[in-house]
Amino acid sequence: MTVEAPAAAALARASRAPQESAEDRLIEHYFRPLATHPGAFGLADDAAAIVPPPGCDLVLTTDGLISGVHFFLDDPAEAVARKALRINLSDLAAKGAAPAGFLLSLALPADLPPGWLEDFVGGLGEDARTYGCPLLGGDTDKSPGSFGTPGSLTIHIAALGTVPHGSMLRRTGAAPEHRILVTGTIGDAALGLILQRDPQAGGRWGLEPAMSNYLVGRYRLPQPRSALADALRRHAAAAIDVSDGLAGDVAKLARAGGVAIDIAFDRVPLSAAARKALAVEPKLIETILCGGDDYEIVAAVDPGRLPSLRAEALAANIAFTDIGTVTSGLPGARLVNPEGQELVLSHHSYSHF
Amino acid sequence: MTVEAPAAAALARASRAPQESAEDRLIEHYFRPLATHPGAFGLADDAAAIVPPPGCDLVLTTDGLISGVHFFLDDPAEAVARKALRINLSDLAAKGAAPAGFLLSLALPADLPPGWLEDFVGGLGEDARTYGCPLLGGDTDKSPGSFGTPGSLTIHIAALGTVPHGSMLRRTGAAPEHRILVTGTIGDAALGLILQRDPQAGGRWGLEPAMSNYLVGRYRLPQPRSALADALRRHAAAAIDVSDGLAGDVAKLARAGGVAIDIAFDRVPLSAAARKALAVEPKLIETILCGGDDYEIVAAVDPGRLPSLRAEALAANIAFTDIGTVTSGLPGARLVNPEGQELVLSHHSYSHF
Repeated sequence: MTVEAPAAAALARASRAPQESAEDRLIEHYFRPLATHPGAFGLADDAAAIVPPPGCDLVLTTDGLISGVHFFLDDPAEAVARKALRINLSDLAAKGAAPAGFLLSLALPADLPPGWLEDFVGGLGEDARTYGCPLLGGDTDKSPGSFGTPGSLTIHIAALGTVPHGSMLRRTGAAPEHRILVTGTIGDAALGLILQRDPQAGGRWGLEPAMSNYLVGRYRLPQPRSALADALRRHAAAAIDVSDGLAGDVAKLARAGGVAIDIAFDRVPLSAAARKALAVEPKLIETILCGGDDYEIVAAVDPGRLPSLRAEALAANIAFTDIGTVTSGLPGARLVNPEGQELVLSHHSYSHF
Repeated sequence: MTVEAPAAAALARASRAPQESAEDRLIEHYFRPLATHPGAFGLADDAAAIVPPPGCDLVLTTDGLISGVHFFLDDPAEAVARKALRINLSDLAAKGAAPAGFLLSLALPADLPPGWLEDFVGGLGEDARTYGCPLLGGDTDKSPGSFGTPGSLTIHIAALGTVPHGSMLRRTGAAPEHRILVTGTIGDAALGLILQRDPQAGGRWGLEPAMSNYLVGRYRLPQPRSALADALRRHAAAAIDVSDGLAGDVAKLARAGGVAIDIAFDRVPLSAAARKALAVEPKLIETILCGGDDYEIVAAVDPGRLPSLRAEALAANIAFTDIGTVTSGLPGARLVNPEGQELVLSHHSYSHF
């Protein structure tokens, strides 16, 4: 590089060593404590290095949360963090994979509420420990506003899991005679979202505050079925996690397998709170079946494997309910009542667009 | 699930099978053609499955671009796509890793210019082929605006590479007597960014249009040094890619190694365009050394390994310039002129905050 002599002279003065940037301090203070995997190098390098367990495949998934779309900045930050990680853990669980770690990309607006990042990191760190899924690396940026309005806060997580070679549980694989089962209860999160936006809804539905709180909690904080992942991998033929609504996600399972799936909608497991709301407002059936954000797992299971899988679900204390049948009909899903009549829905699935 | 009889009757009518969502169609139309890796399952599942090459570690990195921060919506979309992938490829190259694939997370505003996504996918697909880095999976969401202003377009990529077990090139490892080398030329991108924002600057700096275009091109489209990655892994002791400015990134290399690095700033390689601008406006030295977005690689190399590494750089047609020395002084970087005087900079590095 050429520097003209006068300029060089003007510039060449005693210098301090370049200091750490604000981003370095952010990483050091907030995120390094979460980077417990040796291959994360304490977030002090540009990349992580993972030694794959012998005989294992790596399972990769990515999912994000954006303020104003998936959460609000006045939601509890620790719950937002947990949800961001858990929606990815739910994907891994549905694939039968054990969590191995995650990468975190954050875009932070200028008007972040005080304490937000501390709470976010607190929740994230706790879940990373609980689920054995350490932070491996990440990227932080500012989220720009425009014309005086603040930007969105976006959280993107790429999660990494492992399965024994060749054994990732797929969406494909449902075959005639298989039973369709679902973990937990369906519809709570969609009702919780309504309650969060319209607190009056609880009164209309005749819910006690504890029931309303339960439903809002189910929306804010999914329970990834990680404890059932290995059993699903060994026993189930196909699986998908219910993120976009039971009806739509079962339809994906059916299309992927080239089979027809009949869901007996009177057998879909509901919480006491959801049952109560539905009894008062029957049209909530659509919200429950199509609302999404359940983060339960729907699986197709050969009847011969069902007793073993049920036993493992029981041992893991995870409800696992038989809700339907696979047949060789036209690929797709139908919701049927006990008389075999079909339920018509105006929306089948949450669409991101 | 309990449905009251009248409601069930009202709802139970002939039904069509749930249809694919707009997101499904987006994936099918734009992104499936890029998912050439067999473990991506044509993006038809919730996760990818990667069989790690025997004896290899996986290298993971993530980096993103946000409109209004890193690019503008009227920049060519194909170049934005390439840059989003290339900044991650640059990280992999600096770690000595061969690209294996990537996950893509997009948040798209409502006011996306017509044809933007087609162009984006076109550029992304071409680079994915060129660099042998196929799309493995992803996530698309809408980016919300507020008060009538559109949201940002955010692109987050998590890239996956491989190195023989235990051989990822680290930031740590620079030791006294090592030489400091840098690929390509420094400062072009930072000058290109100024030119993009202020087209008059080219005239002030006495640049012909071709030179201005060259600098803007260097800003818009980094050249990841993937062709040198394997040689760096075998011969270099430490490396980092220059994304936040040469001065700041060399300081990171120095701190990580616990060593002092002296950069002879008259030896920093500059393009003809940058040399010309600097001759007219000497204070651009600071922009050049600290501006960032170079996506070149700085490496610490044992003098004994230098001839082999130089030969491989020559064979790959990548300029590789000796710019400094490692000593056992106080950890940190200094920029010195031929008389050994230090250059004082007011900013050392691009900070994301």
